[in-house]
Amino acid sequence: MELDLILQEVQTAAANNDWQSGMELLRPLPVPDLASILSELDADTALNFLRRYPAKEQSSIFGYINPAKQSALAELMSRSELTQLFTLMDHDERADLYNRLSEEERLSILPGLAHAEREDIRQLASYEEGTAGAIMTSAYISLSGQLTATEALQRIRQEAPDAETIYQIYIIDEQRHLIGTISLRDLLLAPPHQRLSQMMVTDVIHCRVNDPQSEAAHFIAHYDLISLPVVDEDNKLVGIITHDDALDVTQEESTDDQMRLGAVDGDPTVSLKEATIGTLYRMRVFWLVILVFGNIFSGAGIAYFEGLIESMVALVFFLPLLVDSGGNAGSQSATLMVRALATGEVRMRDWFLMLSKEVTVAFLLGISMAAAVSLLGLVRGGPELALVVAITMVLIVLVGSLIGMSLPFVLTRFKLDPASASAPLITSICDAAGVLIYFNVANIILDLAV
Amino acid sequence: MELDLILQEVQTAAANNDWQSGMELLRPLPVPDLASILSELDADTALNFLRRYPAKEQSSIFGYINPAKQSALAELMSRSELTQLFTLMDHDERADLYNRLSEEERLSILPGLAHAEREDIRQLASYEEGTAGAIMTSAYISLSGQLTATEALQRIRQEAPDAETIYQIYIIDEQRHLIGTISLRDLLLAPPHQRLSQMMVTDVIHCRVNDPQSEAAHFIAHYDLISLPVVDEDNKLVGIITHDDALDVTQEESTDDQMRLGAVDGDPTVSLKEATIGTLYRMRVFWLVILVFGNIFSGAGIAYFEGLIESMVALVFFLPLLVDSGGNAGSQSATLMVRALATGEVRMRDWFLMLSKEVTVAFLLGISMAAAVSLLGLVRGGPELALVVAITMVLIVLVGSLIGMSLPFVLTRFKLDPASASAPLITSICDAAGVLIYFNVANIILDLAV
Repeated sequence: MELDLILQEVQTAAANNDWQSGMELLRPLPVPDLASILSELDADTALNFLRRYPAKEQSSIFGYINPAKQSALAELMSRSELTQLFTLMDHDERADLYNRLSEEERLSILPGLAHAEREDIRQLASYEEGTAGAIMTSAYISLSGQLTATEALQRIRQEAPDAETIYQIYIIDEQRHLIGTISLRDLLLAPPHQRLSQMMVTDVIHCRVNDPQSEAAHFIAHYDLISLPVVDEDNKLVGIITHDDALDVTQEESTDDQMRLGAVDGDPTVSLKEATIGTLYRMRVFWLVILVFGNIFSGAGIAYFEGLIESMVALVFFLPLLVDSGGNAGSQSATLMVRALATGEVRMRDWFLMLSKEVTVAFLLGISMAAAVSLLGLVRGGPELALVVAITMVLIVLVGSLIGMSLPFVLTRFKLDPASASAPLITSICDAAGVLIYFNVANIILDLAV
Repeated sequence: MELDLILQEVQTAAANNDWQSGMELLRPLPVPDLASILSELDADTALNFLRRYPAKEQSSIFGYINPAKQSALAELMSRSELTQLFTLMDHDERADLYNRLSEEERLSILPGLAHAEREDIRQLASYEEGTAGAIMTSAYISLSGQLTATEALQRIRQEAPDAETIYQIYIIDEQRHLIGTISLRDLLLAPPHQRLSQMMVTDVIHCRVNDPQSEAAHFIAHYDLISLPVVDEDNKLVGIITHDDALDVTQEESTDDQMRLGAVDGDPTVSLKEATIGTLYRMRVFWLVILVFGNIFSGAGIAYFEGLIESMVALVFFLPLLVDSGGNAGSQSATLMVRALATGEVRMRDWFLMLSKEVTVAFLLGISMAAAVSLLGLVRGGPELALVVAITMVLIVLVGSLIGMSLPFVLTRFKLDPASASAPLITSICDAAGVLIYFNVANIILDLAV
């Protein structure tokens, strides 16, 4: 909240051309907070502030600014400014920025960069979005196993200013194959003349450039790593992914899952505040229209029972209640199952085990709810209706829960994301099932009663 | 997947009393994987394998075993084994284990521990669940600002074996107040005789023992920290939270949010596979019953329009379709808004800004869907019904979206978790609104048409 206040004061200062007061407000801020504020300012103002920092600091602030504003700033910068920024920025971030530049901007800065840097950018920028390669950095420390602990520490001191992390060191052979790793901690505790090859860990946990980011993040979380090395098809070390990137990926994945569960499509990093009407429309229209077709089945079911409804309109009163309860129970089951499948806690072969449990729980839930609503049925339409409502409720909660728990399994079976079993999708399917169950039960019981 | 195979083979080996083959399978595994396997074995078998590792390794494996199995193992261990385990375990993990022991077990091990360790356990075990204090560790490195870089490195080497991380060092005064921090990286690069007080960062990002864990995790993610220091009310350093714990918290929070959105209550760390029927029932019954009451309103709305329905039963065919579309649009809006509020991208004061955007998007979505379903109305009930269905669809998607986007704001306003605006809750509210809109529109149009 305090940042909001600072933002307002900075905006006022900038509006009054009082850059000095603005800088006094900004200077005490940690870099990520400073970048948050610059991200909210218009690009001209933000650039005016950014230019007042030394070049190296500029590049680290720039890395934290949001992607859209980064592009806007890059457009305003002179060619030499942009070239300098590219030289100093973190390798993974500059590759991302490069991917967002226009062809023209790219061509304008490449000649100003050293050959090695051009290659590095081209390399990192070439990996497909969503892969480990796309978030890795090439600024890691790799040493030969022939070095002694003391020599290694010396090399680390030299390379530290350019490396994203120095806390995990990777050992490579002459062809850059990843053959070992050692933590700085172990290195500090090692006998000074021992060679790295004698103390390194040789079974290095790693991933491949084309592995999905989520898998890389999972490795980092599961093995409590500071950084995860990334190798190419030939097992050559090409980059590392650091623990802070894993956190970002985890948060993005979580957003992505929630969007899917809520039947929203699209890029999880998109800003709701900045998204255009067109983007928002596209994120939502697909599922809404698909779900319409789902509901046409429910309508057809109702049409089939037209005669029954005409003979007892009171049946319609309970339609939303009964049908929704199935959808609700189904959403709950699906939510629990999607999570359990995502964390790997439950696997495909556990389906039958989970099924028997689900049946018991759903039956108990159905009974509880039937007890509550049958009373209402009694008041509204007499004992027959109460019986219809109670039996329907048990069956609907049971069927809804089974649909909810099975759909994520079925999707997984067909290599689809189980999180596509969104609440609205399950609701639609349960609705159609619910309509059929309700009117069939009503048909049987009311027929018997007549 | 491969771990599954190893698990099966280890189980077979154990069943044949062939512990040696079992160990051959387990020995090459990284500790977290080894612990996953031990977590799946029965406690006796797991303990039999665990005892074959050296004491220090036992304690680090034990830390990765799942909590329920940890408690089972602790029960089987002798007093001396348990005491040794407590001496060697990570400080934060042993405090958690201590909290899960029986009173009897606690009393049996405390006498065997050194005074300082007893105090450390009591201290760490005393913080409320969900607070920063409950996940912090006391195994950090804190030094006096008077030390030179060289002296500091020497001290770090001595303390490294017991510290959870040595990559961020905290500087304290004589009363243990947190006065600065320095990374091991900067320390390695510093002139050997410079004092820590001259090179430390003095504005240390920190949290307090009673701050929520989610906030601590957010700090670590936002500022890309390796560890976050935790201070008590007097600003004295009492612990640190490490980056890997932040990842765990983030994953837990994400599960928690998804469960809330799916209208499921309860502990996000509970294992779906191991949860009892009673636990699963309790996680679900509350919201299911609450939602029944919500649906009673829809039923009452329908009852009110009984006459209208009797005169045109075809209206009922479109009831699920129209009513659900509002709920679906509402779920989408709520999903987007809950995320935007959680990440802080959208704030309370943005409500009006978001509202105008939402109205436009919802209107466009409503028009698109009205076009699709009015054709169906034409076929099923003629031009009047088509008009009713089209107008209702636009209104329902509009109202549903507005409810979906506003509810998270309202909940935030009343200091409730916006994620409580679950899809089922929004569906229920939108259903009731939808019924009223539908039959009122039908009433007006069909009256005019007659």
